[in-house]
Order: sequence, then structure tokens, then C-alpha cells
Amino acid sequence: MTEHWWQAPCHALNEPANQAALERDAQLTKPAGSLGRLDALIPRLAALRAQARPSVDPVWIAVFAGDHGVAAEGISAFPQSVTGQMLANFVNGGAAISVLARQLDAQLEVIDLGTALPVGPLPGVRHLALGAGTANFATGPAMSDETCLQAMRAGRDSVSRAQAEGTALFIGGEMGIGNTTAAAALACALLTCEPASLAGPGTGLDVAGVAHKREVIRRALTLHAGDHSTFEWMRRVGGFELAALTGAYLACAQQGIVALVDGFICSVAALCAVRLNPACRDWLLFAHRSAEPGHLAILDALDAQPLLDLGLRLGEGSGAALAVPLLRLACELHNGMATFAEAAVSGQRA
Amino acid sequence: MTEHWWQAPCHALNEPANQAALERDAQLTKPAGSLGRLDALIPRLAALRAQARPSVDPVWIAVFAGDHGVAAEGISAFPQSVTGQMLANFVNGGAAISVLARQLDAQLEVIDLGTALPVGPLPGVRHLALGAGTANFATGPAMSDETCLQAMRAGRDSVSRAQAEGTALFIGGEMGIGNTTAAAALACALLTCEPASLAGPGTGLDVAGVAHKREVIRRALTLHAGDHSTFEWMRRVGGFELAALTGAYLACAQQGIVALVDGFICSVAALCAVRLNPACRDWLLFAHRSAEPGHLAILDALDAQPLLDLGLRLGEGSGAALAVPLLRLACELHNGMATFAEAAVSGQRA
Repeated sequence: MTEHWWQAPCHALNEPANQAALERDAQLTKPAGSLGRLDALIPRLAALRAQARPSVDPVWIAVFAGDHGVAAEGISAFPQSVTGQMLANFVNGGAAISVLARQLDAQLEVIDLGTALPVGPLPGVRHLALGAGTANFATGPAMSDETCLQAMRAGRDSVSRAQAEGTALFIGGEMGIGNTTAAAALACALLTCEPASLAGPGTGLDVAGVAHKREVIRRALTLHAGDHSTFEWMRRVGGFELAALTGAYLACAQQGIVALVDGFICSVAALCAVRLNPACRDWLLFAHRSAEPGHLAILDALDAQPLLDLGLRLGEGSGAALAVPLLRLACELHNGMATFAEAAVSGQRA
Repeated sequence: MTEHWWQAPCHALNEPANQAALERDAQLTKPAGSLGRLDALIPRLAALRAQARPSVDPVWIAVFAGDHGVAAEGISAFPQSVTGQMLANFVNGGAAISVLARQLDAQLEVIDLGTALPVGPLPGVRHLALGAGTANFATGPAMSDETCLQAMRAGRDSVSRAQAEGTALFIGGEMGIGNTTAAAALACALLTCEPASLAGPGTGLDVAGVAHKREVIRRALTLHAGDHSTFEWMRRVGGFELAALTGAYLACAQQGIVALVDGFICSVAALCAVRLNPACRDWLLFAHRSAEPGHLAILDALDAQPLLDLGLRLGEGSGAALAVPLLRLACELHNGMATFAEAAVSGQRA
């Protein structure tokens, strides 16, 4: 069997940096562990970044857009034309992720993997033209092996560009009408779950819409039933952006870049990445628990405790971007606070 | 009965700004409500700030420090000398809140209400000398009426200085060895709860320490038992910084400044403020749910849903400071995103 690029080993963790961060943390002028989840994050970031006093800058945000043939089944509250329209909005600065990237001083890269309706060329968008969206997975495979591999390489290539810019933290975002349906189908297949537990309202379906979406997924899972590999499931019921994000997370782990995973769709891509190369899990931080009800099961499967829980369900990488200041401030606290000795403050009683 | 300053009306909310923010939100290029809690926050901020496109800047952080006579009962993991030592750390830039204020470009004011051991004068600290800490409330009232009024005025005065600087968002922080004991006792009295439900490990007590702390509170509540007013309970079992924070929250509401409430101790002060003048509740946002187990009951009593839940228990206003970027980014998203019309993006299907 051919060795795939994503099976190569992940970047090693730096144990001395981890130890140094733990030791410094114990000396800072605060009760031990009083920064809770942020305190726990720092030694891990130190190990990933190979820095006793870690930083998460610079930040790179790559938004992957692609259309979904399954939209023909009427599973989204928005028309399919929105995917292409939003590409222009991303580069024109009007989308949520554009505002966030600007405010966070993060590099924003926009990748058009293939939309149903023709767009562009749009200045600032990378058009990869993998197809006019995926095929409808309710009636056949979403894509060919080769297209799925191309989409995964698109994610890896973005990470390579990020690495060339010295990126410390990679955020993957997504845009694609119908992609919560694809993500839910893929997660159902990988976790052997019923659609009722993983498919929710997405961008805004009503109760009848959610029931229909679940029925479409149930039908697709019956059609594609079989003991398939993770890659095969990605190809059959996934999407361009899901495959690109999966490739990106795997490449981050291999190239030694911390990945901050956004919401429901990104977490399903993270699940695929971990199935394809379990060691990549170390490199994934989880930003938030989304409003999409199925997200919790995905997070649990990944043993992930996200930082935020704000009922977000916008996508684009926006939830991950919103968590960036917490990571930055956690680093600044660790790196900038005085020790008990420096400040002549008495420590905890023995 | 004398009219107290905190009984004066609170600043009015601006309904047109609230409406304008709601209308704009519905036109932004995102699924309706997809920013969850942040979307819900914006119209409220608009009403408070009388701005259709609200901002939370500039930010003012006031840290109130005071010692507690009840520390004599051995209810803290740290020696009482730490309160004074930390005052120097605050102004020297080494404390958590100092790092956060610097990173957030927030004004930091440090107020010494009265420490058990002599400190200073320290440059940059306002020494108010209300006493060498409160008296031990396990054996008598923590302070006199006049001292409690002075402490409340200290909070109000800080808000007045903040207002003179054009402050949009006020964060109160606290430092005081023993203050989770005072806060828990005060909350037990106001909510008619058992110490077991509200007193926890604070900065790091072990199981035996927590049991002892609860016993001290139980004894104090028996000693002070009676149908007392909120102010009388504050005077009997509260603390300098608890009273100052209470005064600050009331003054924020009267002067039209949004207050972002930190953790357990600040929330108990917020509870006192709401009991003294219920209309002030509108002006209080809650930053985080702390690791202190009793915090949840206080938040529930205030019908408060905090933004963060990171297991923080550091105090100093640090949890509120950590939530500031979320508020800022929520404002930037609302103010900076394109509308569906501006971006020529199709809206949700009818």
C-alpha cells in the first residue's frame, strides 16, 4: 500500500521547555493553579512551541470554501450562491473573519476550492477549481480519490505558506452552504452514531428542516454503508473544505505549528486528522463549543475541552479567532508576571 | 430615615440605540444570531452606552485591597502580610492584573483601604487608611457604620475619577487575605444559605481547611443572627473591599458606566449593590464563572450568565480583564462587518 504524506511522524514535543514553564508557573505571584485552564495551557504551549516562555504569534487564518452537491436535497437555510458571494466578502473585509483577522493583526488567506456557481477570479482569493462543488453524496460519492487528495494537499500547502511566514498559530476556517450536513454525515460514519445525535440546525434550519437533513444523512449512510477507511469516508460523504482542513491539521502537526480548531465542521476535520495520524492530536487546541448540538459528541470523541462556550455557530474560523486574545493574554501573564522572590511576596503556607 | 446616595436613580437606558443595534445586527453578513452570546450582548451595550455602534473603551480597572480580621481564625492558605506585599506588586507591574492592564491598554488604579501590617506610602497607591484591616467578624462586627460608608464612598470616588477620564467600562478587582470567607459569610446572610453551599477553598485550602472555614462562618452567622438590612450585613460580616466594590457598582449604574464584574468576591459585592438599588443590575455584565464552587449560586441569584468559564480563582479583577477582548471584538464585529446589501450576499431563505 502506498504511504501517504500524512502518515509521516509529527513534530516532537519539547520536554525541557515544558518543564521550565511548569517551574516558572509555580513561582509566579498568584495562588498555584489560580488561572485554571489558562495555567494548564502554558506548559503545553511551551512544549509545542519549544519555548519556556511561549508565544502564539504570528497568527495565520486560512478560510477554505467549497460547495456541496448535497445542497440539492434542500438541507440549508441559505441558497448555494452564498458560498461564492462570501468569497468576495472575505477579501473585501466585510465578513466576520475579515474583521477579526484585522483586529487580531492575523494574516488572512482565502482559498476557493470550488463553488457551484462560477466566481472570480477575485483578487486575493486562491482559486483551486477542484470542481463545481462536490457531487451529491445522497446519490453517490462526494468526490474521487484524486480530488480528495488534492483538497487535503490544499490544506497542507496553506500550512507550508504559513510556516514560511513564521506562523506560531494556525486557524482553519470554512465556508460552504451545506457543510454541516457533510460534517454530520462524516462524523456519524466515523463515530457510528445516528444522525439525530449529530445533525442540527446549522445556519438556521427549523425543526422540519432538521428532520429532513437527518433523513438525507440516514439515506446517504445506507447508500455508502461499508467498513471504509477514514479517507474513504471523507471522499464519500465529506467535502472539499473538510478535506482541506484535515490536511491542514495534519500538516500543522508535522511542521510544528499549533492549530486552534474552530467549531463543528473544523472539529469533524480534526477527528479525521486524528484518525489518519493519531499523534497529530497533541498539536490541536480547541477554541469553543459551538451551538450546533452535535459538537459536544465530536469534542468528547477527541477528548477536547474547548476554551469558550458562547453559543457561536458562524463558522469561517470566527470562534477560533475570538479565542486568540485568551491565548495571547495567558502567554503574557506567564511571561510578564513577577515571581514571589522578585516581588518579595510571601508564598502559600507549607 | 436618611436617604443614602446609592438610592438615587440609575442612569437611563437608551432605547433608540438598542433598536438601531438590533436592526443593524439583522443585516450583517452572518446567519441571524450566529454569534450567540456576543450577538445578544451588542444591543444591550448599545442601550447602556447610548451608541448604536457601541464601544467598551476606554477601560478602567480599580483594585481595592483590604485586610480581614477573620484571618485570625486561620481561614486562608496565605499569610496576611501578602495583602500589603501585593499592593507593591500591583504598582510595580508584576501582578496578574498589572500585566493584563498593560496588555489591554487599560488604566489601573490601586486603592489601599487598610492593611493589617503597615505598608507604604507606595508611589501609585491611594492609601485610604480605613483601619488595620476589619475586625474579626467571628467575634464582633467587621466595621462601624461610618467605616462601611467610607469604604463604599471609596468605590464611588474611583468611579468618579474613571468617569472624568471618559471610561466606558469599569472593572473592579480585589485583594485581601481572607476575603472569600467574608464574601461567603455575606452571601450566606443575604441568600439565607448554609456555609457548605457557598464557602470553598479560596486561594487553596485543603478539605480540612474548607471545613474549618465553614465552621467559622457558621459561628459568625449565629453570633450576628437577626433580620438585618443589606448594609448592616455588609458592616457586620463584609470587608473594606467588598463595600468599596458595592459602592463602585452602584456608582457605575448611576453615572452610566458599564461595570464588568469579576469572580466570586466581586459577584457578592454585585449582589449587595443589587439589593441596595435593584435598578443597578442593568449596568452589570458578568465576566466569568470562577472555580470557587459557591460562585454559581451567587450568579444564579443575580440571573447572571458570565462570558467565560475557565476555572479562574485569582481575583484582582483578572477574570474580568480576560473577558475584555471578547467585548471589544464583539463591538468590532457589529461595527465593522458588511451588511448583506453592501456585500451583495443573499440572505436566509424566507
